[in-house]
Amino acid sequence: MSPSPLILKSQADKRLKRGHLWIYSNEVDTAKSPLKAFAPGQQAQVLNSRGQCLGVATVNPNTLICARLVSRDGDRPLTRALLLRRLEQALALRSQWFTAPFYRLVFGDSDLLPGLVVDRFGEILVVQIATAGMERVKDEVVGALQQCLKPKGILLRNDHSARDLEALPAYVETVGEVPEVVELQENAARFLAPIAAGQKTGWFYDHRLNRAHLQGCAGGKRVLDVFSYIGGWGIQAACGGADQVVCVDASQQALDWVGENAALNGVGDRVQTRAGKAIAVMKQLLDEGERFDIVVLDPPAFIKRRKDQKAGAAAYRHINELGMRLLQRDGLLVSASCSMHLERQALTDIIRGAGRHLDRHVQLVYQGGQGPDHPVHPAIVETDYLKAAFVRVVAA
Amino acid sequence: MSPSPLILKSQADKRLKRGHLWIYSNEVDTAKSPLKAFAPGQQAQVLNSRGQCLGVATVNPNTLICARLVSRDGDRPLTRALLLRRLEQALALRSQWFTAPFYRLVFGDSDLLPGLVVDRFGEILVVQIATAGMERVKDEVVGALQQCLKPKGILLRNDHSARDLEALPAYVETVGEVPEVVELQENAARFLAPIAAGQKTGWFYDHRLNRAHLQGCAGGKRVLDVFSYIGGWGIQAACGGADQVVCVDASQQALDWVGENAALNGVGDRVQTRAGKAIAVMKQLLDEGERFDIVVLDPPAFIKRRKDQKAGAAAYRHINELGMRLLQRDGLLVSASCSMHLERQALTDIIRGAGRHLDRHVQLVYQGGQGPDHPVHPAIVETDYLKAAFVRVVAA
Repeated sequence: MSPSPLILKSQADKRLKRGHLWIYSNEVDTAKSPLKAFAPGQQAQVLNSRGQCLGVATVNPNTLICARLVSRDGDRPLTRALLLRRLEQALALRSQWFTAPFYRLVFGDSDLLPGLVVDRFGEILVVQIATAGMERVKDEVVGALQQCLKPKGILLRNDHSARDLEALPAYVETVGEVPEVVELQENAARFLAPIAAGQKTGWFYDHRLNRAHLQGCAGGKRVLDVFSYIGGWGIQAACGGADQVVCVDASQQALDWVGENAALNGVGDRVQTRAGKAIAVMKQLLDEGERFDIVVLDPPAFIKRRKDQKAGAAAYRHINELGMRLLQRDGLLVSASCSMHLERQALTDIIRGAGRHLDRHVQLVYQGGQGPDHPVHPAIVETDYLKAAFVRVVAA
Repeated sequence: MSPSPLILKSQADKRLKRGHLWIYSNEVDTAKSPLKAFAPGQQAQVLNSRGQCLGVATVNPNTLICARLVSRDGDRPLTRALLLRRLEQALALRSQWFTAPFYRLVFGDSDLLPGLVVDRFGEILVVQIATAGMERVKDEVVGALQQCLKPKGILLRNDHSARDLEALPAYVETVGEVPEVVELQENAARFLAPIAAGQKTGWFYDHRLNRAHLQGCAGGKRVLDVFSYIGGWGIQAACGGADQVVCVDASQQALDWVGENAALNGVGDRVQTRAGKAIAVMKQLLDEGERFDIVVLDPPAFIKRRKDQKAGAAAYRHINELGMRLLQRDGLLVSASCSMHLERQALTDIIRGAGRHLDRHVQLVYQGGQGPDHPVHPAIVETDYLKAAFVRVVAA
C-alpha cells in the first residue's frame, strides 16, 4: 500500500458515503495528493478533505475513474486474505441459489471486487480483469481462487477491450489444465461453450432466468432467435417444447456450436440455423413470408458509450419493429438489451413506439433482468444493465 | 353513444397517439364540446383539433381524467361484442401462461378495458369497476363474462374507495351462486380467500412470481412475513421448505385465515402468527433478540397519492431498516412495494440508504414485478406498479 493517502476535495466524499465505490480524477485534491505519485494499480488509503479515512482504494492515475474502493476499513487493503473472504461471500450467495456449479462467481463491484469477473464452469474458471488495481494483485486472485475452489484450471481471458481504458495489455493465460471447450448446464439444458475462442468468457449466464421464462412459454411454438450466438435462447426454447427454432447469427462458427448444442440436448431435428447479419436476415424472412409465434432479440450492446445513445436507440427501434413484423397474430416478442446506457424505461418506450407504428396493442407480460449471480449494487446503476421484456403484440 | 363528439384542444392528442388511453379535462376544447353536455359514463367519439377521429372514449364530466379511450375505431364503441372480444384476448393471454384457472383475468387499461378488474377463482369471478364508463355497461360486462366463461357466480365488489373519484356509489352485488370463501392455487400452494369480507378482491395474485422465487430460496430457513394478510408469502415459504415462519398482521381475522391456510397445506406446525401493527411487532421482535434468515415486507401502498410521497418514502425507509436489523448475518430481505408513486429506483435507493445506515453491503439479487396476468401497458406508467426486491444484506 502507498505510504501517502489519496486525499479528496471537499464534498467529494459524498458518493462514497452513499455506498458507491468509484472516485473520479477531478474529485482528488491533487495539490495535496498528486495522482502522478501513484503507480497504476497501487493501493492507498482514501481521506476526505477533513482527514477522515474512508477506506482503501486501488488507484490508476491515468484513468477518468482514478480509484476504486476495495475496503471501507483503512487498515484492510486488498490482500489475499481479503480476496479470499470476498470470494467465500460470493460463493455463498451462488451456492444458495444454484445447485450446480455453473454461474458467474464474481461480478465486480457488486461483489466488492472492482475490476474482477469470474465465470465458473464446474472445475474450470474463466477470469476477466479490467482494472490496473486488480491486475496488480492477479497472483493473489489466482491463489485465492485456488484455495477457495480447487479448480482444475483457470483461464485468464484478459484480451477484452475494457482493458484499453486502463492501458492494460491484452493477453490470455492459463493456470493448470484448461480445455478449449467446457460443458455447462443452464435451466436443465446442456451447452458446450468455447471459452478460449468464444465471446467474452465463452458464455452469458446473465439471461438465465429470462431463458427459463422462455422455456415456460415455448411449448408448441415456432421460435426465431436473432443474435443467437451459440444457442442459449433457441436451444432452451426447443428444450421447452418448441416445434421449430431458427437461430440467426452473423458468425458461422457460432452457428456450428448451435448445431453441436442442439444435438447435445437431443433437439437437433427442431433447430435450424441461418447465417447472416440480423437485419438482413430478418428482412429476408419477412420477404419470404415467414412468421413466428415468438421472436427473441438479444443483440450485443448497441450503446457502448453514452455518446452512442441516439444511434443505438435507433438500432434498437429498427430491430424491435422488424421483430414485431415477423410475429404471427398475438405473438410474443422477447426484446433484450445489455446496454447499461439504455434504461429499462427507454427500452419500454422503444417497444411502445414500435407497437404504435405498426398499430398493434403491446402488453409487457414479463420484465426480466439479471440472475442472482449478477447481483446489482444499489449505489452503482451501471451494475443494473440487463433487460429482457416479454411483449405480447396484439391486433386490438 | 353520444351524438356529439368530444373535441380536444390543439396538441392534446399527442398522448393518445403515443398509445395512452386517458384524456384530462383541461385537454378538452370545452368551447366546442362542453363536458357538461355528457352524462357520466357516456361514450363519445374523440376528435382532435383538426377533426381527425381518434376513437371512442367513455366520458365522465366530473373527473380530472375526464375520458378514457375504449377503442381506436370511431365506429366501434364499447358494446357487449367488443367487451367479449377483449375478454377473449385477455383469457388467451392467461391461458398461455397458467394451467389452472386462478389469475387476474382483466387488468384494466392494460387489457384495453379501462376501469375494469376481474379476478378469477376457478368458477367464481370477482369484479371491480372503477369508472363511470364501465359502470354504465355493467350489465354488458356481466353478460360478456357469462358468455366467455360460464362462471357459477360473479361477485361485484364495488365497495372500494377508487369509486369515490368518479362519484360512484359503493355496493356489493352477486350474480349466480357466490360463496363467502373460495379456494385458489398459486405456485402449487392452496389458499382459502375471503372474497366477500377480505381486502380488495380477496386475494393478491400480482406477487405470484415473486412468491415462487421465495419458495425457491426458503428451504431450511426461518422466515418473517410482515403485513402477511392471509399468508400468501409465509405459507408459500413454508411450502418451499422453511423451518419456521412467523406471520405478522394487524388483523386477527387475517391471521385466523393464515392458520386455516397453513393447515390446508399441511404446514401448520411450521407457521406461527403474531397480531399487531408491523412496526410495533418488529420492534418487539428486535427487543426479544429474534432474528430471521429471511424477512418479507409487503406493506399496503404507503404512497397512495403523489402528495404522500415524502411521508410514504420515510415509512418505507423505516420498515426496511427494521427488516434489515431483524436479519441474521448475510440474510435476505424481500422488500415489496405496490405504490405506483414509488419508482423502482426510489425503492432501490431506500434499500441502499438503509444498508449504509446499518453499515451493511447490500446486493439486489432479484428484482421482481407483476406476473403476466397483470400486464404493463407501455404508455401508462401507472400500470407498472409492483416491485419486489430480493436483497442480500452482508457484513462486508
